[in-house]
Amino acid sequence: MKLRWGIISAGKISQDFCAALQLLSKEDHEIIAIAARNLDDAKSLGLQYSVKYCYSDYKEVAQNPEVDAVYIGSINTTHYELARMMLEHGKPVLCEKPLCLNLKQTEALCEFAKKNKVFLMEALWVRLFPAMLHLRKELDNKTVGEVSQVIVSFGVQIQHVERVKKKQLGGGATLDIGIYCAQLASFAYGSETPLKIVTTGHLNEFGVDESSTSVLTYSGNRTATLIMSTKVDLPNEGLIIGDKGTIKVPFRFWCPTAIVTPDKRYDFPLPPSDHKYNFHNSNGLCYEAEHVRQCLNEGLIESPVVPHSETLLLAKILESIRSQVGVHYPEDDKEY
Amino acid sequence: MKLRWGIISAGKISQDFCAALQLLSKEDHEIIAIAARNLDDAKSLGLQYSVKYCYSDYKEVAQNPEVDAVYIGSINTTHYELARMMLEHGKPVLCEKPLCLNLKQTEALCEFAKKNKVFLMEALWVRLFPAMLHLRKELDNKTVGEVSQVIVSFGVQIQHVERVKKKQLGGGATLDIGIYCAQLASFAYGSETPLKIVTTGHLNEFGVDESSTSVLTYSGNRTATLIMSTKVDLPNEGLIIGDKGTIKVPFRFWCPTAIVTPDKRYDFPLPPSDHKYNFHNSNGLCYEAEHVRQCLNEGLIESPVVPHSETLLLAKILESIRSQVGVHYPEDDKEY
Repeated sequence: MKLRWGIISAGKISQDFCAALQLLSKEDHEIIAIAARNLDDAKSLGLQYSVKYCYSDYKEVAQNPEVDAVYIGSINTTHYELARMMLEHGKPVLCEKPLCLNLKQTEALCEFAKKNKVFLMEALWVRLFPAMLHLRKELDNKTVGEVSQVIVSFGVQIQHVERVKKKQLGGGATLDIGIYCAQLASFAYGSETPLKIVTTGHLNEFGVDESSTSVLTYSGNRTATLIMSTKVDLPNEGLIIGDKGTIKVPFRFWCPTAIVTPDKRYDFPLPPSDHKYNFHNSNGLCYEAEHVRQCLNEGLIESPVVPHSETLLLAKILESIRSQVGVHYPEDDKEY
Repeated sequence: MKLRWGIISAGKISQDFCAALQLLSKEDHEIIAIAARNLDDAKSLGLQYSVKYCYSDYKEVAQNPEVDAVYIGSINTTHYELARMMLEHGKPVLCEKPLCLNLKQTEALCEFAKKNKVFLMEALWVRLFPAMLHLRKELDNKTVGEVSQVIVSFGVQIQHVERVKKKQLGGGATLDIGIYCAQLASFAYGSETPLKIVTTGHLNEFGVDESSTSVLTYSGNRTATLIMSTKVDLPNEGLIIGDKGTIKVPFRFWCPTAIVTPDKRYDFPLPPSDHKYNFHNSNGLCYEAEHVRQCLNEGLIESPVVPHSETLLLAKILESIRSQVGVHYPEDDKEY
């Protein structure tokens, strides 16, 4: 079945998503609609891919009967409302991570999708990367024995980026890059809920977290250390450490193309693409797009790879981290 | 001036220290006395280096007028009493790290040395390594700009080692390996006192810390993350991260022979030695031995490289770390 995509926002990540869709069969994926606050932005992006409908009102996407699924690439603060609007109109949703700003929103949105029996998936693209599927095997095979430490860092100099800097845009290290750290810990420890999360960090002048280090304690004396920064470049790799050695998800662990075990390096090159992407390895967005198509073909309303339970667990971890640093969003005071 | 050493304990680290002394000029260093609880151990080690006096009573070293300085290589629980005994008899002391079990002991011992005007130095050998002296230069030159993150791990599978496992032997990751992590953070941040130390960790069945992760917060939104484990092998490297890049103290950061800047790797091979050491890079113990000689030649009662202030700062950090994990030594209830 061909999936006809509606794209919400014509910003950088949506541009990359559209480009990545070109790596897939034209018989399977088509961009049929794009909506952006500024119609020219929608048209400009739409022109590149001969998109039939370009809108300045997101609701038009929701109401367009030709749209089979919606990709939401707008900023964090808009995810909840927009995803809900699409679900309300029965549109399956793939929404950029983090799905929502806080746990309350995430719970409400997942419940709403479930109640309406519509597919909803957080765009945790990394989980669909071939390197991560291989990592799963290595972990299941106990290549490094019993894992008791995960160390993962994500630091990039993005303090100047408005979206990251400002509270009203859902800024902060945790929401922007933290989910990648949290998801790796969760991946390594089989989606177990941490017993304890202890975070120390620093706020920027706008009251959002510019850096933090979190220690997650799991059962059986197991630990994950998550280090994030918007101020400096960190190693940006993940280490999964057991009593028989270490598996490394090397540099750009958030969109990995290799897994390094104590014995061997396994490479998983991304599909070649001559498109110029805004972000690193964005051609890998094609994996999640194709995954959504397969889920919908099977009539699923949750992805087995990124189920709601995982999205909720990550939302819980992220909320704990950023609130310990002292970040409070206006949305935290509302009910959903 | 030749320094005639008295050696306390004939255990593994003392054996290595004696061997490392052989790398120095015989005109500068001589081992004149060795004391061990078991006389045979003292004699066996003494025989290798034609040591004049072998004792089963540590006091004999203190009372021997031919001894110019004492190296204390006995287990952690004995440091305070033995160092004090040596100082009482006017003997300059180089004592294995950590100098004492807790802050109270450390304060009392440093005060005692100062009052008696006798040299006392914690054997923080790493600080005398040429690689560390080079690191100082790189930091002073702002090679990586303004440093705002330090990440350092020390993990080795030593949970079975009695000394590490048991509380009555002063066991625990913090006392055994933690000082190396703490000292690197302190080194990178110019011996500033952290504003906050937050630690999460796990106890073993004997009530000492088998692993922990600590986040140290410094002024100016700077952070150090210290990860230690006696259960698994960690990267065992130190990363000092600024806005212009990262300086790495590579594997075996606790006795380093290289410093890696963003541009270049600097190697500092240790003096060659055909002695078989118990621990890695123990030939590097020669640097601290020679440093002590030079300090004494200059009539100093503190090392400028490892001053009491640094030892006290590290003791404070270590006490905070291990007590947050829940380790309480009987010595914590005593006054000194």
